[in-house]
Amino acid sequence: MTKQEVRAAILAKLAVRPEDTVWDVGAGTGSVAVELALAARQGRAYAVEYKAEACALIEENRRRFGAWNLRLVRGTAPEALEELPLPDAVFIGGSGGRLEEIVGAVLAKNPKARLCVSAIALETLSSALDIFSALDLDAEVTQIAVSRAKPGGRLHLLLANNPVFLLSACRETGL
Amino acid sequence: MTKQEVRAAILAKLAVRPEDTVWDVGAGTGSVAVELALAARQGRAYAVEYKAEACALIEENRRRFGAWNLRLVRGTAPEALEELPLPDAVFIGGSGGRLEEIVGAVLAKNPKARLCVSAIALETLSSALDIFSALDLDAEVTQIAVSRAKPGGRLHLLLANNPVFLLSACRETGL
Amino acid sequence: MTKQEVRAAILAKLAVRPEDTVWDVGAGTGSVAVELALAARQGRAYAVEYKAEACALIEENRRRFGAWNLRLVRGTAPEALEELPLPDAVFIGGSGGRLEEIVGAVLAKNPKARLCVSAIALETLSSALDIFSALDLDAEVTQIAVSRAKPGGRLHLLLANNPVFLLSACRETGL
Amino acid sequence: MTKQEVRAAILAKLAVRPEDTVWDVGAGTGSVAVELALAARQGRAYAVEYKAEACALIEENRRRFGAWNLRLVRGTAPEALEELPLPDAVFIGGSGGRLEEIVGAVLAKNPKARLCVSAIALETLSSALDIFSALDLDAEVTQIAVSRAKPGGRLHLLLANNPVFLLSACRETGL
Repeated sequence: MTKQEVRAAILAKLAVRPEDTVWDVGAGTGSVAVELALAARQGRAYAVEYKAEACALIEENRRRFGAWNLRLVRGTAPEALEELPLPDAVFIGGSGGRLEEIVGAVLAKNPKARLCVSAIALETLSSALDIFSALDLDAEVTQIAVSRAKPGGRLHLLLANNPVFLLSACRETGL
Repeated sequence: MTKQEVRAAILAKLAVRPEDTVWDVGAGTGSVAVELALAARQGRAYAVEYKAEACALIEENRRRFGAWNLRLVRGTAPEALEELPLPDAVFIGGSGGRLEEIVGAVLAKNPKARLCVSAIALETLSSALDIFSALDLDAEVTQIAVSRAKPGGRLHLLLANNPVFLLSACRETGL
Repeated sequence: MTKQEVRAAILAKLAVRPEDTVWDVGAGTGSVAVELALAARQGRAYAVEYKAEACALIEENRRRFGAWNLRLVRGTAPEALEELPLPDAVFIGGSGGRLEEIVGAVLAKNPKARLCVSAIALETLSSALDIFSALDLDAEVTQIAVSRAKPGGRLHLLLANNPVFLLSACRETGL
Repeated sequence: MTKQEVRAAILAKLAVRPEDTVWDVGAGTGSVAVELALAARQGRAYAVEYKAEACALIEENRRRFGAWNLRLVRGTAPEALEELPLPDAVFIGGSGGRLEEIVGAVLAKNPKARLCVSAIALETLSSALDIFSALDLDAEVTQIAVSRAKPGGRLHLLLANNPVFLLSACRETGL
């Protein structure tokens, strides 16, 4: 599950506004999708995911957090993106190795869509950099490393989460 | 100025809702205060600051980002907090060495206020831990380290921002 | 066990020379003690530890890495330090809450000893800062955060180790 | 200049022994080369560098730290590597975009050489990963992030150094 601080950074980088249409591609547990939906509460949010177990979690999190404007789209990107309405902002948390096609599909719908891609693997980071560069999109790359000490103990021991890379870009603004 | 990712984490930790009353104590440039105000857009935000130059920046950022529900309170905490309405969530970005009194003043107004304190200096971190512990508040401590590569260059060089500690707590929930 | 990069930093901060007498107080598994011994190969190294299981590991690591100039001292600091020869450099990896006495015992033996203390808990960091400051020792504080991707996989996923604080000081040089 | 903790990690990853022959390719200021030379004090160290200003610094650091077994090789890699004796361990801190040829030249001299490459730019990291993988070398990737509070102040403010990636590999051992 994407951790709180990283989710918050994704929302900030996508600059989600209340009326936006937002997509979460490769939504996993839906932790980011729910936050996107709550931030775009007068708009619509779409979580694209093909794994059955993850889909069940997304539905559960949708109910649990009252993200009623979030729709689960069962399927594989980029095919499943065809039917979706034009997005203002798109988070890509998983691409199944088809990041280039997915970014292409997003920009075909809306060339000015605000994009954010997360990468845990160095290979994903590097391929995302190549794809953004080939599309002439200037990506800002951010690495977020969070450590946390749980409340309640006698001693506060800093425990590290694994670092996450975020690439964000927008054709219009250079973001 | 507090960086984007850290501002986003502060808002997430304070769980700001649209109708909340929020305070930013030691508001500095107002970068956090403006975001608090925008997140509490049906509520009210108060930025407490005594330095003239910082106050000018807060007013400028208020206008620039349309944070019309943000009020600048010129003065020193905790004295300046007396007149303010009961807060739901309070960020303390600067305390002038009077953190204990400030936290006390916040909890006197609302014992269930959600609190977040940022610390750059190890001494501030340690004194905040002591104060929270003396008040029997279980603090979650988070350290956020962000590195960033600017868009537009031929090479993406990761440049580190200085790490920031955030302590967050809430009497009711243990947060 | 202290990780490779942190062990290397400790050795660098202690500036261990081949003829040095070095102590490792609270030696745990002996991973640092063995490296100290190998760096001071014409000198002598002492690992102070009271837990039986840890002592067995130290003896095992001593043999495994051929650290023949390392002597295990079974006992509790600062008492067990009494009998040891004057140290040039001392690493304190565990103090059982008696850091002040231990630092005092080190400096009583050699006021110019080079010191390095590691801290995982924020409370240890803060108490070490206080103790160094009370002794008028200027401590350099370093936080080391290491992430690692294991070789051999198809993807390189960065996995974070928990961050470690090192405090180092030396009366003579200010280090 | 490569910082102390990163230099120490490089030496640890290269597992330099007193009798080793070591190379520093793209030696810059010579800060790593000097440490390699001191670690291989019964062996020989070679610093390969073509920039005049950097060469002057290497000579100066050689004298300053008494690294008498360090020889400066003025020239460009991989050409300048031809004349050098078979290396046990090689650090590549700069490659001028010719990393593949340089790694090839090292392995042609000694297929079992221990290698460590540093990368600041994400593009260098990614190209180094590709090169190691094409050569069927399993690289361990480490990212080191160091923050430091200077001694002597009233408050200890953690200031971040930029993070560094180290790739290390050795055909024989998988390191």
